[in-house]
Amino acid sequence: MDSIKNRRTIRKYKQQDIPDDLLNGLLEEAFRAPTMGNMQLYSVIVTRDPAMKERLAPAHFHQPMLTEAPVVLTFCADFNRFVKWCRQRKAEPGYDNLLSFMNASIDAIMLTQNFCTLAEAAGLGTCFLGTTIYNPDQIIEVLNLPERVIPLATITVGYPDECPPQTDRLPLEGIIHQEQYHDYSPEDIDRIYAYKESLPENKHFVEINHTETLAQIFTDIRYTKEGNEAMSKVLKETLRKQRFDE
Amino acid sequence: MDSIKNRRTIRKYKQQDIPDDLLNGLLEEAFRAPTMGNMQLYSVIVTRDPAMKERLAPAHFHQPMLTEAPVVLTFCADFNRFVKWCRQRKAEPGYDNLLSFMNASIDAIMLTQNFCTLAEAAGLGTCFLGTTIYNPDQIIEVLNLPERVIPLATITVGYPDECPPQTDRLPLEGIIHQEQYHDYSPEDIDRIYAYKESLPENKHFVEINHTETLAQIFTDIRYTKEGNEAMSKVLKETLRKQRFDE
Repeated sequence: MDSIKNRRTIRKYKQQDIPDDLLNGLLEEAFRAPTMGNMQLYSVIVTRDPAMKERLAPAHFHQPMLTEAPVVLTFCADFNRFVKWCRQRKAEPGYDNLLSFMNASIDAIMLTQNFCTLAEAAGLGTCFLGTTIYNPDQIIEVLNLPERVIPLATITVGYPDECPPQTDRLPLEGIIHQEQYHDYSPEDIDRIYAYKESLPENKHFVEINHTETLAQIFTDIRYTKEGNEAMSKVLKETLRKQRFDE
Repeated sequence: MDSIKNRRTIRKYKQQDIPDDLLNGLLEEAFRAPTMGNMQLYSVIVTRDPAMKERLAPAHFHQPMLTEAPVVLTFCADFNRFVKWCRQRKAEPGYDNLLSFMNASIDAIMLTQNFCTLAEAAGLGTCFLGTTIYNPDQIIEVLNLPERVIPLATITVGYPDECPPQTDRLPLEGIIHQEQYHDYSPEDIDRIYAYKESLPENKHFVEINHTETLAQIFTDIRYTKEGNEAMSKVLKETLRKQRFDE
């Protein structure tokens, strides 16, 4: 499928709105993604209002595509609707736990990827903002998310105004395992990461960041232990507040 | 996209193998899915050996498609490879925490959906087995998964030998929210679930299960509080054993 094969993340968009009909059609089609027990444990918040984008911006570290894209979508794990339905139908729900959160998360992320595929096949560009689970508490407040709803993925969408080079991927043999997991030897690791480490842009990153290795950019600058541990605390607290911790 | 619009879960497959080239090509293309910081925090275990399918069967409650499909894929959140690379490159990783598990989970599930889309566009049928996170401990043992690897999704794949009716979906208005989450009133819930509850197959389910409402089939039979809480315990224990709990 060419739109998947040639995919790149798009961060710059034309000043052109996405018609409601188009967006709703893509979302409706995306709901065909597999969903556990056909429960559809997700909600999607559509942000078009510039004032709302500004309010979301701090949670996403003010990445410019958030305010520049015509449409921002926040995909949430949602057990609120289902639990309300159960209670209204004399059924006693038991979904305030980690397993249910993971079930809803898988539903929501399958939907997110399905939407991206459809949007890109329709000529739109998307950017996945991983920051959503870094600051779920802030997003919950801005979007007014009730208990049993947790934001997991934010996608900015618009008509592409750039065509950046495709990013590299690890070789297939580095990711798939036949029949059982065969753990990586030091030689395997060297071989699997050789191409990534050889790329001029990655060598340039190492140079401008004054690190010794490419891996140190990840551990010391982009995704640090301190940062991850602090954000894990927020995430655990959010699971508790949103009632997924019984 | 017709293959998404017309999608249905396929549980019966022809006695026809999937060539390695085809499978690898689909997986390679699926790796174009967005991945956080281009870290590709996932692994895929390919099961073709009937003996291995038999060993996986109990973890999936002996659902027949597991042993009948030519190929079973287990998609895992994987920080093992990345951490090994960091350590081999004088970089001190800090990924033994819940946030990192969620980052890897999102990567793995985006990949899973992307693979399903590509497989279905190529004429294959798939079934998503939600049982994977019910019994991660058993799957870890059978597939020999090391620390920092957790199975999240299992997909059975083969050439379709059935064309079941499409399942229903909730109306768009029940799932999307404009600008902020607008919580559901009792009338909203009635309206959103009316079509689902009106379907003859769902009325039939209620009849044969001797429940009063459709919701009770979910809470009392399919996804019970006791079951979810027991499986949450296993999942928490698995996170601890696989080192995602610091």
